[in-house]
Amino acid sequence: MSGAIHRDMPTQTFITHLRALNPAHTMTQAQTVFWLVEGHTRAEMTLAKRNGTHFDEEQFRVRIAHALARFGCSADKIATRGVELADGTHTIWSDMQIFRLHEKPEGEGMSSRMRLYSEVAAGVFERFYAEEEEPPSDLLHVTCTGYVSPSAPQRLVSTRGWGRHTRVTQAYHMGCYASLPALRIAGGFASAPGALRPVGPRRVDVVHTELCTLHLNPLIHTPEQIVVQTLFADGFIAYSVCDASARGGEPALQLLALAEDVIPDSSESMRWICSDWGMQMTLSRDVPERLTAVLSPFIDQLCDRANLTSAERAEAQFAIHPGGPKILDGVQALLDLRDEQIKHSRDVLLSRGNMSSATLPHVWMNMMADENVADGQIIISAAFGPGLTLCGAVMRKSMA
Amino acid sequence: MSGAIHRDMPTQTFITHLRALNPAHTMTQAQTVFWLVEGHTRAEMTLAKRNGTHFDEEQFRVRIAHALARFGCSADKIATRGVELADGTHTIWSDMQIFRLHEKPEGEGMSSRMRLYSEVAAGVFERFYAEEEEPPSDLLHVTCTGYVSPSAPQRLVSTRGWGRHTRVTQAYHMGCYASLPALRIAGGFASAPGALRPVGPRRVDVVHTELCTLHLNPLIHTPEQIVVQTLFADGFIAYSVCDASARGGEPALQLLALAEDVIPDSSESMRWICSDWGMQMTLSRDVPERLTAVLSPFIDQLCDRANLTSAERAEAQFAIHPGGPKILDGVQALLDLRDEQIKHSRDVLLSRGNMSSATLPHVWMNMMADENVADGQIIISAAFGPGLTLCGAVMRKSMA
Repeated sequence: MSGAIHRDMPTQTFITHLRALNPAHTMTQAQTVFWLVEGHTRAEMTLAKRNGTHFDEEQFRVRIAHALARFGCSADKIATRGVELADGTHTIWSDMQIFRLHEKPEGEGMSSRMRLYSEVAAGVFERFYAEEEEPPSDLLHVTCTGYVSPSAPQRLVSTRGWGRHTRVTQAYHMGCYASLPALRIAGGFASAPGALRPVGPRRVDVVHTELCTLHLNPLIHTPEQIVVQTLFADGFIAYSVCDASARGGEPALQLLALAEDVIPDSSESMRWICSDWGMQMTLSRDVPERLTAVLSPFIDQLCDRANLTSAERAEAQFAIHPGGPKILDGVQALLDLRDEQIKHSRDVLLSRGNMSSATLPHVWMNMMADENVADGQIIISAAFGPGLTLCGAVMRKSMA
Repeated sequence: MSGAIHRDMPTQTFITHLRALNPAHTMTQAQTVFWLVEGHTRAEMTLAKRNGTHFDEEQFRVRIAHALARFGCSADKIATRGVELADGTHTIWSDMQIFRLHEKPEGEGMSSRMRLYSEVAAGVFERFYAEEEEPPSDLLHVTCTGYVSPSAPQRLVSTRGWGRHTRVTQAYHMGCYASLPALRIAGGFASAPGALRPVGPRRVDVVHTELCTLHLNPLIHTPEQIVVQTLFADGFIAYSVCDASARGGEPALQLLALAEDVIPDSSESMRWICSDWGMQMTLSRDVPERLTAVLSPFIDQLCDRANLTSAERAEAQFAIHPGGPKILDGVQALLDLRDEQIKHSRDVLLSRGNMSSATLPHVWMNMMADENVADGQIIISAAFGPGLTLCGAVMRKSMA
């Protein structure tokens, strides 16, 4: 065991035990589009009935189907998405939990959505920790899709009687890039001096529970909302952050460097707000261009901080948050990446959609499991969200 | 400059530059009670009108005034509270920003409250940093009363062009105890190895912007809501966290130890939830007893971790989060504290009310400014919130 942490030397922060849980249902993009056509149409019908106005159902259905075909994410980019609620898998409106669109055209309000979030998140934590005997020293809960206290980790700690061993920290509302701030928070906990950390072995568990699909509002038909509604999915993933002494020979990602930037004059390009009916995203069309305009020097600086050789960088794997297909295409072109260097980001988008903060950890998990990503391989991550904030990390795959 | 941080030795984390901003308006508790009587009455009147039911205005006014006298926090415990909105200072309903109770009996919904929060928080950051030339290495934003991205610190960083120097972290929705998790997050950032932190001098600025009074709902007349509505206030406070090398001889609180616990079987005692109309607190009457039942061994353990002598503990100042008057009375009796040992907690409650996470830092600020709290004096902090979570810290006042 190392007795001291020296500054300005390679970090001894490791990410181990990446593990995901699948949401209850998997939907194909064709099913998603079908449901959205029916949902938007039903919502408008209910609204028209409420207001006593005329509604041409077939005309509207054609219009919204056209908008989905034009602006929605196509099935060759997102084949399937995981969703936790059964609501999205059928159109029997009276059987819905949130989207009783024959009565409430925007779906249930924030309170009902948060009650449901609370139940789902508590269940996810129960499942992640069903077999766990040893309490982690820290539980860091990351989400931007549900804020309820006591939180799911607090409930778990309370139920298990882990209160003296496990501290709970809530890292909420940061958006898609939140796994990277989570790493610096968790890394700080893992290397904190004795009197500032819990007694006993140190293992900081980071758990993401994102229920993005809970926050749909089928009364909003704008192109940007069509993009959002066909892009986002639910995702649950956990991992442990520890220092070298607590790693215990586990396969890991060693964290070599972090960097962040807030792009000037981009505050209005993306917003994420608590509204009456749920969390609302706004997204302007210039986001991919704004990001790619600054990404190249950002990655250069990040690689410098990690002291990468040009050979290491040329062979690196890229874990790029797949905010959408255009982002991946733009980043690949900009950084002149071979298909196999960005494969895992595309794979996660294709099979799971954009799970907000849970997405990048899924890419890391797949890279750890993939034998084609060699021991010692450098992995360069980038993610983005409101601000516009750009976050990056350099890691090294380390099998033992 | 110290080259290494050794584990299990006293931490070199320091809290400096505690500085507060006053909310725009100061209300006496008599003004608060008057407003609440009128607000609750007006809300019920509007509801009755909407539903076409009979409403006996005078009978209701007497009933709600009685409930406020019985359950509300009395003026000898909270003399004044700061509020940012002008709404609470008059009863011209058509001039209100949120509480247009002649039209909307519960006040505006979550969306409107968040828009207002966003403006206020951005203004607070602008004021805190108006004279600041040197960007902090980190801005840690702490709140449980408003979640909007881009957040106020992201807007500040964007406006100032500080993106390359200053990382933004959002520590949201933890409740009244959040200043203590904030210290361990900030402490981790301040002592992180080189490649995991921004380039340049390290100064982690923690900024609390709590707008508790924004989340009033005058249609809820339960005793627990009467308690909440007369107890909570708005508060804005900032401080810097740094290690020994960045302290630069500033007066500081040196952080000696931290501890946390989640009290078993207490999940239902306190809740904080995003609802359709705003953030909703529920609070059961057993909170003071549940906390005092576990506080004594918790403080013992905390003092052991800080290696306090019995003399240091006997002379310590106590910064106890003034959740309410009963909490302070219970803690003082339980720990057998002299009045002067808990004076600053009572003073902050008396002059400012419960400002959620901003409250404890106000107590620290006053202790730093008070010459009767000597250089070298030990300060023991405790705060609590949903979970029930109990957080504690031991610090030493250090004038240079």
